[in-house]
Amino acid sequence: MTGLDDIARIGADPRRGGYSRHGYDRAELELRTWFTEEAGRRGLGVECDRNGNLWAWWGPPGEGAVVTGSHLDSVPGGGAFDGPLGVVSSLQALDLLQAKGFVPGKPMAVVVFAEEEGGRFGLACLGSRLVTGAITPAAALRLSDPDGVTLAEAMRSAGLDPALVGPDVEVLRRIGVFVELHVEQGRGLIDLGAPVGVASSILAHGRWRVSVTGEGNHAGATLMVDRRDPMIAAAQVVLAARRAATGVEGARATVGRLVPNPGGTNVIPSSVDLWLDARAEDDARTRAVVESVAEAARAAAADEGCEVTITEESYGDTVVFDPALRDKVSTVLGGVPALPTGAGHDAGILAAHVPTAMLFVRNPTGVSHAPEEFAEAADCSAGVVALASALEALAR
Amino acid sequence: MTGLDDIARIGADPRRGGYSRHGYDRAELELRTWFTEEAGRRGLGVECDRNGNLWAWWGPPGEGAVVTGSHLDSVPGGGAFDGPLGVVSSLQALDLLQAKGFVPGKPMAVVVFAEEEGGRFGLACLGSRLVTGAITPAAALRLSDPDGVTLAEAMRSAGLDPALVGPDVEVLRRIGVFVELHVEQGRGLIDLGAPVGVASSILAHGRWRVSVTGEGNHAGATLMVDRRDPMIAAAQVVLAARRAATGVEGARATVGRLVPNPGGTNVIPSSVDLWLDARAEDDARTRAVVESVAEAARAAAADEGCEVTITEESYGDTVVFDPALRDKVSTVLGGVPALPTGAGHDAGILAAHVPTAMLFVRNPTGVSHAPEEFAEAADCSAGVVALASALEALAR
Repeated sequence: MTGLDDIARIGADPRRGGYSRHGYDRAELELRTWFTEEAGRRGLGVECDRNGNLWAWWGPPGEGAVVTGSHLDSVPGGGAFDGPLGVVSSLQALDLLQAKGFVPGKPMAVVVFAEEEGGRFGLACLGSRLVTGAITPAAALRLSDPDGVTLAEAMRSAGLDPALVGPDVEVLRRIGVFVELHVEQGRGLIDLGAPVGVASSILAHGRWRVSVTGEGNHAGATLMVDRRDPMIAAAQVVLAARRAATGVEGARATVGRLVPNPGGTNVIPSSVDLWLDARAEDDARTRAVVESVAEAARAAAADEGCEVTITEESYGDTVVFDPALRDKVSTVLGGVPALPTGAGHDAGILAAHVPTAMLFVRNPTGVSHAPEEFAEAADCSAGVVALASALEALAR
Repeated sequence: MTGLDDIARIGADPRRGGYSRHGYDRAELELRTWFTEEAGRRGLGVECDRNGNLWAWWGPPGEGAVVTGSHLDSVPGGGAFDGPLGVVSSLQALDLLQAKGFVPGKPMAVVVFAEEEGGRFGLACLGSRLVTGAITPAAALRLSDPDGVTLAEAMRSAGLDPALVGPDVEVLRRIGVFVELHVEQGRGLIDLGAPVGVASSILAHGRWRVSVTGEGNHAGATLMVDRRDPMIAAAQVVLAARRAATGVEGARATVGRLVPNPGGTNVIPSSVDLWLDARAEDDARTRAVVESVAEAARAAAADEGCEVTITEESYGDTVVFDPALRDKVSTVLGGVPALPTGAGHDAGILAAHVPTAMLFVRNPTGVSHAPEEFAEAADCSAGVVALASALEALAR
């Protein structure tokens, strides 16, 4: 049976642990091929849309479809479940429905969204943002990976035409309802004692790039008083993010990526780039966190004789999933609990355009975006059964 | 005439600016080929020793030689002068001596030391350390670059046999005296109004790797109170280094390299590695700086529920260059000033074994290990003339 074991060897990251699978890299392309073959084995017709998202159709494509799916890419050194569990569960759910002879009353599809994590090009939910127009083609095509490869180049080498990216109303019109199954990325279902739950909302969430510029120089020959060291200001930004988020109820702020340039041991960096990931229940709280960090960054840079620029790379306000759909799915599943999440998803992007629901599968470690991310086989099976039931109810 | 222009295209780093030329990488290998050809054009016979250092001999190799030279590798995004100026000036000095018909009374050689900056394998002065036994072969062969390529693998792909690395008394015995010309990496000669000076001493200097381990997790789904984020402790180490060095007279401490793992924007890192470069006038002061940083690192890690390990990757006590040789060279050059430096050099490693001197060429920016590093053409010429005079006096 199709399962996560099938793809366990693809994109394993011996250095970081876990998996590194990023949009249009070798691992992700291999996973796309795997998905296309798996869909083909089920008689599903696979299309790639203009924005690099894969669509496997049960029967002829059409408007008002019941769509499920997730993504196959990971964060650097991510877990095995975030993304692929949703894709594999979607295929398994269709297997269950096909096996029981279910005849859908609506078109059905499994979708794989491109570059959901933003692990390569720095912008999460790239595929769904492009389809929905949440990012302009021009802004997307300006994105480049840490090696300087642009999104356009990466798409071209994957056989796609970057000139065609952008809002796709035809694709959107086909989605009658979207249901994404995902491993939970917190401890909500552990505490509730439930293997499966439905999503109520996603925190407001953005990424900001903080670039501090000072004066690169020799680490041994430069007196302490002569320095304009951007690493000093960057360290203060890291600590300011912790303070700011701690001061706003329910907020989270993280600096997980920090890159000194040039990055030599015996070199005072000329610049440091770091990324602030900030989230909170609503727009006002999220903005309050970011403004507090920005203020600290400006003060720290000024103290050190450095310059700082802060760029919003992405932002999405709080997502409240369609309450009627959420309640319908929960009822079909015998009243599974609803819970919020701090993690962003393609479902959160689509929710502004089509009725959208999410199913979460319990994660006994509570850890995600790390190799420790996990879900028990029994809970994964419960997730597949729940997804199949939800799809059946929606496509009847 | 042989000059830095000849190699200006090799190893230019479009991303960082300046040059990235590291031991046994493509750029450094190209520079080795260039050096070998330049030496050949002068009738010098080139040998590569067991530790990857190149020796170009004027006449037959022999004991008690007058040796000059420097290195061709750079820090990441380094300047054009640090290293190559010494190599190019050595060749030009020999040109001057050959042109005037000088017949050396002793063997003479130009040496190019391997991986002086430690920009690839993390240990400065690798070639000279290996020759002198300042690092054991076992410790050297454990070194690897950021991509996981070991020194042994890099040497093998450059056609060298890593099984042969280690102390080389035969090579050492051949060096009667070593004179290294180098661009100054500070403002000493600007303040003195002199194009050329001689070195008096090098600060005590070491590198320490600080590894902080916490718990990798999702940046959005993990509450602030549930975090064990090594980036928080790492930021405190950066600030502690600044405080510690500022509190000890003449000391310098720098964190120029900091690597979160896995390094994703939306991921709390599971670990952060950072490197402390610390230097001071003597051993006691250097140790005081490092102990102060280590204490702060342990406290910060404990506060965050993280583990920290601190590893000394290299250490060298203060180097005082041979006073008699320094005075002799200064006198030959008409009484040029002597000045100390905070930068490490192969000459500093050799100084424990053979009489060693250094010439510095004025750097009008005072900046080094950065693209802004510079020396005026007239000062470079003065350096070549000074080096030729010193070599002539020593080899007479």
